[in-house]
Amino acid sequence: MPESQALDALRQFVLERDWGQFHSPSNLAKSISIEAGELLECFQWSDSPTSEVRDELADVLTYCYLLADRLELDPEEIVLNKLEKTREKYPVEKARGKSTKYDNL
Amino acid sequence: MPESQALDALRQFVLERDWGQFHSPSNLAKSISIEAGELLECFQWSDSPTSEVRDELADVLTYCYLLADRLELDPEEIVLNKLEKTREKYPVEKARGKSTKYDNL
Amino acid sequence: MPESQALDALRQFVLERDWGQFHSPSNLAKSISIEAGELLECFQWSDSPTSEVRDELADVLTYCYLLADRLELDPEEIVLNKLEKTREKYPVEKARGKSTKYDNL
Amino acid sequence: MPESQALDALRQFVLERDWGQFHSPSNLAKSISIEAGELLECFQWSDSPTSEVRDELADVLTYCYLLADRLELDPEEIVLNKLEKTREKYPVEKARGKSTKYDNL
Repeated sequence: MPESQALDALRQFVLERDWGQFHSPSNLAKSISIEAGELLECFQWSDSPTSEVRDELADVLTYCYLLADRLELDPEEIVLNKLEKTREKYPVEKARGKSTKYDNL
Repeated sequence: MPESQALDALRQFVLERDWGQFHSPSNLAKSISIEAGELLECFQWSDSPTSEVRDELADVLTYCYLLADRLELDPEEIVLNKLEKTREKYPVEKARGKSTKYDNL
Repeated sequence: MPESQALDALRQFVLERDWGQFHSPSNLAKSISIEAGELLECFQWSDSPTSEVRDELADVLTYCYLLADRLELDPEEIVLNKLEKTREKYPVEKARGKSTKYDNL
Repeated sequence: MPESQALDALRQFVLERDWGQFHSPSNLAKSISIEAGELLECFQWSDSPTSEVRDELADVLTYCYLLADRLELDPEEIVLNKLEKTREKYPVEKARGKSTKYDNL
């Protein structure tokens, strides 16, 4: 897996605190949802986010990196793989300029 | 911002389809929550995930990268910044081996 | 719509504070997700919930009632209607004792 | 607990299919988040919901009713109890017309 300063720091942080025991894939998936809700709260009553958006987005990314690591997945790689599937569902000529879901294009 | 093959591919993908118009920070934050729910669904009735976990985690990361880009934030940087704040809330001597929230340590 | 003491109290509460202006269906849907994340946080590291579970479940229900009201829907009625659709997707003889999704039964 | 036609029907539905085994409080809390994400998806790219909003809101309510039942809580009662706490955090004279969170009023 390519080097990532953030992931190295996260691994070290978790190891020092003996927190790996709580980081089952299931608990990490729950954590991603929990933090996604806190990120969304920055936009709860307005389309312009509160200043906490930086830290809340960081929290979602943190748990995503931890889950990817736990499942031995590379974030860059799985995003690129999924993008290829999305490319087939949304060919440019059909999807350009539309927010319609692929099964209604 | 450091090079990221995934982000470059995502930017190109969105540009080709003229989808930037739908990617307000607010819509991207909603999308992160939506995909986090789909990721969680891989663990709905069991702690062992279904095979869709790769693609669902990729979807959450995808929208996180797009939101970071839209807000001119670097994912690595904001994760490291937030980690420093978390380090202060959870000193090793107090937090080691416990899942307790910081206000109850 | 049948009488509901909780809904009456919520309507009064919102009216007194002139908060209806913030309660677009979109904002209420975001709020439901946000509160669902806080409810899930009661189970983040353990299958046994923290004591906040009562209030967090109340928050999800609160926004559900407000959204139903805003869309002129009756909670009891829409739950019963959806149940009929679910009954067709999960006939007892096929679904009994299994957590499998309907498209894999 | 007061009579609720929807809850009675849900209990019967779950019993017939022997699904109670999957309905731990933790799994139900996950389900609420999952369905909240599907509800939010009705508003993903627009403030006007798609037609699925009825069924998606019904799904969130369904799991909320099941979790309340599992924890021996009455939805009406916990909503009213929480409202009293919210009343103290948001006195009319301070909160009227504002979407500000209580710790910033």
